Amino acid sequence: MLRDFVKAAKPEKDELERRIEEEQAKLAANQIRVKDAKVPVMVIFEGWGAAGKGGVLAKVIKDMDPRFFRVVTMHARPSEVEQRHPFLRRYLVEIPEAGKFKFFDTCWMREVTRERMRGVLDEDAYDSRIDSINMCERQLVDSGYLVMKFFFHIGRDEQRARLDRLLADENTSWRVNDDDLWENDQYDTCLRVYDRYLRDTNRSSAPWYIIDSKNRNWATLQVLEFINMGIDVAIHNRGIAAPLRQNIFALNHTEPLASIPLDKTMDEDAYRAELKALRTRLNQLHYEVYHKRIPVVIAYEGWDAAGKGGNIKRVTSGLDPRGYEVHPIASPEPHELARHYLWRFWTRLPKSGHVAVFDRTWYGRVMVERLEGFCSENEWRRAYNEINEFEKELVDAGTVVIKFWVQIDKDTQLARFTDRQNTPSKQWKITEEDWRNREKWDEYEAAINDMIRKTNTTFAPWHVLESVDKYYARIKAMRIVVDELERACGKKD
Amino acid sequence: MLRDFVKAAKPEKDELERRIEEEQAKLAANQIRVKDAKVPVMVIFEGWGAAGKGGVLAKVIKDMDPRFFRVVTMHARPSEVEQRHPFLRRYLVEIPEAGKFKFFDTCWMREVTRERMRGVLDEDAYDSRIDSINMCERQLVDSGYLVMKFFFHIGRDEQRARLDRLLADENTSWRVNDDDLWENDQYDTCLRVYDRYLRDTNRSSAPWYIIDSKNRNWATLQVLEFINMGIDVAIHNRGIAAPLRQNIFALNHTEPLASIPLDKTMDEDAYRAELKALRTRLNQLHYEVYHKRIPVVIAYEGWDAAGKGGNIKRVTSGLDPRGYEVHPIASPEPHELARHYLWRFWTRLPKSGHVAVFDRTWYGRVMVERLEGFCSENEWRRAYNEINEFEKELVDAGTVVIKFWVQIDKDTQLARFTDRQNTPSKQWKITEEDWRNREKWDEYEAAINDMIRKTNTTFAPWHVLESVDKYYARIKAMRIVVDELERACGKKD
Repeated sequence: MLRDFVKAAKPEKDELERRIEEEQAKLAANQIRVKDAKVPVMVIFEGWGAAGKGGVLAKVIKDMDPRFFRVVTMHARPSEVEQRHPFLRRYLVEIPEAGKFKFFDTCWMREVTRERMRGVLDEDAYDSRIDSINMCERQLVDSGYLVMKFFFHIGRDEQRARLDRLLADENTSWRVNDDDLWENDQYDTCLRVYDRYLRDTNRSSAPWYIIDSKNRNWATLQVLEFINMGIDVAIHNRGIAAPLRQNIFALNHTEPLASIPLDKTMDEDAYRAELKALRTRLNQLHYEVYHKRIPVVIAYEGWDAAGKGGNIKRVTSGLDPRGYEVHPIASPEPHELARHYLWRFWTRLPKSGHVAVFDRTWYGRVMVERLEGFCSENEWRRAYNEINEFEKELVDAGTVVIKFWVQIDKDTQLARFTDRQNTPSKQWKITEEDWRNREKWDEYEAAINDMIRKTNTTFAPWHVLESVDKYYARIKAMRIVVDELERACGKKD
Repeated sequence: MLRDFVKAAKPEKDELERRIEEEQAKLAANQIRVKDAKVPVMVIFEGWGAAGKGGVLAKVIKDMDPRFFRVVTMHARPSEVEQRHPFLRRYLVEIPEAGKFKFFDTCWMREVTRERMRGVLDEDAYDSRIDSINMCERQLVDSGYLVMKFFFHIGRDEQRARLDRLLADENTSWRVNDDDLWENDQYDTCLRVYDRYLRDTNRSSAPWYIIDSKNRNWATLQVLEFINMGIDVAIHNRGIAAPLRQNIFALNHTEPLASIPLDKTMDEDAYRAELKALRTRLNQLHYEVYHKRIPVVIAYEGWDAAGKGGNIKRVTSGLDPRGYEVHPIASPEPHELARHYLWRFWTRLPKSGHVAVFDRTWYGRVMVERLEGFCSENEWRRAYNEINEFEKELVDAGTVVIKFWVQIDKDTQLARFTDRQNTPSKQWKITEEDWRNREKWDEYEAAINDMIRKTNTTFAPWHVLESVDKYYARIKAMRIVVDELERACGKKD
């Protein structure tokens, strides 16, 4: 793409200035349309060092209101903490919210191409990054994001001249770093790598725009025109449905919930004894996981009153409180609702060596949000695959993902609800909503069967915890966690 | 994709049959929704020989009304005539019309993968085919087509067993051809090539669905479910705007029409003499073009009464009538309107060695259709790039593309309109519409300037014919045609 890039004809100076003003005014109007239409706009600037991204950005936002946009700079190599997360995370936590613009001064392209050139990523690792990026951009666009990608292009000589000019003046020389000089030195190598990246990620839903950056005004005009054009399209297309994709992940066989016997029990003595042993073992494993820098995600879903809380308490009782966090997931807050539905989970991921326990999870999308109409049919149907992709990113980054479904029958739920209602100290645990959900038991059961069947991947399978006897369920959960951590620490196959 | 394909769990026999019936009924209802929503549906079946595409197809269309679908078989290698056209053409002429289904029993995948395996296509030629196919599928989807792509997958042993079974019975042995046997013999090679093709063309706008085809009912159910799902999405998304793409083609510099002097003339004697000489030369060149199998497209656009007709007459007077055709392009007929707007030009392309002259062209999209609101703004804005891509396909297939803009000024047009009105033999040439268009001269001029600027590609540049003096314009046109044909025949650089 870059190697056969063809410059468009640059207008004359007067025309340039006139058209820039027009487009700036149009963008000022568009920021209101974007706000009203609740479209999140992600603008990515990539390109050669000294290509003038900053100068163009200044002109692009000139007439915008600071309430409607933010600029984020991602030049720096990932920090030590960022390196302990999946590589997409540090970008994804920055995505804009609905109705707002976010300008990225470099994004995942810079990191991936740099690492490719430095040999940090071999061919396979590079391909896997490309797959992740394409997946991620697709998920954003499918969910209504406008993703505009610009590559600021200048020739080798032009870059050299600019770097020399910057270096010659002590007020500007600090702006030139070793990376820029190396890039100019290795211009042809970089060109090949950039070209390949642009081709690999040039999808019709989020195409690349290559900006001839020799002249700042001309570059500005091109960027403004493309952004205004993109906004028109995105606003027009609000609420479109995304094509549903075939599941591409291996799934384990799944039995319907109703066929799972719930008569398993454990007596109190056996429970106490094993709880103690497992707690000790978990504690050891937690330190090992910490030293080996393995991130761990434990996800709990289950019926109301199935015993999730007590179960989580027992599992975490074996963990060092400095190394884990429990995230109770309620309805999304407004700022969470305004972003991609997985965003509030990306922001809560554990760094490597840490454990995050989710009390309810991203699976709300295909249960409560599906059944209560909080998202469209297209959205929840798409979500199975998106969730599998999300969990795959975690697993590929070395995360142990353990998913529990805490299962009880309808009678047991009724008994526990009644007990809660009649026990003053437990009354806070039961609400009208619980009773309303209970009326939809059959619908929920069908949705849960769908969910488990479609997301029971080999790399992040579901574990059903039979929780009519809570002792049994707790011990089973702890055994599974011990098992999985031992496997992750190389103590088991 | 194919090598790491993961089968979904096949339901039990009873459930399979029940769900097939449900989906067939749903498809029967969907055919009416598709008709009402005017969505064209292109369903492509590809896959291994003996994978059972035909059997599945029979079940898929079982409850459909023959008025709403057609099946087309593209197994055969391109015929001699088809080989004399751009390779996409034989598929594109078959695209469905709005509101109808067209099932393709193999499509461009088969041809391209076969030619790749036979070594007809080297790496570069293969890449160029992939670009063409992705371009073409994108253009269709952008213009509202639903494109569903299925690959019927079976293992090597299963294929062998099926072929043996077919061969053992003389009533079915004819269904096995050498291609199938070769494919089974070279299963791993084919798998690699198929896998690469699927990856190369798996775009989010038209993703691949891989069908586990070991069991016919199961394969049928999967196909039905995906089609019904796709229809829901396509109907929901009717009228969406496509992201506008950056022009990727080199453009020649263009002067605005108004700056072109129109005072060029030629006296009658010089005209007669040169006309005769050029006619003779054109005649020779036409035979040469015929022998060298070079396809030629001459496209005329220009103001009403600019002299297109007379100009075309003089150019074709040098051609052998068996080797050229003039296509007068009026408003599209209903069956043309119901398809992609370039379809009526794909169907009129010249085969190699032949000349097609278009009296008005595909550029109507960005002139009359733009100004009269016959298409949306998104559609005409997108069209510049789509037209460049279309012409690039022709040029890449060896076609000489010559584009004329026949230019006069507003006063000359008025004089000619008045003359037509006052001369009984010419009155048929002038209509109310001509006068109405004339009132919009300035709008048209702006649109024409846009058009020429954005489509003045280096591989298919515009030639302006100054036609206030028709003699001058005719000789200029003939000289250009002679020049271009000489260049194509290798007589000039």
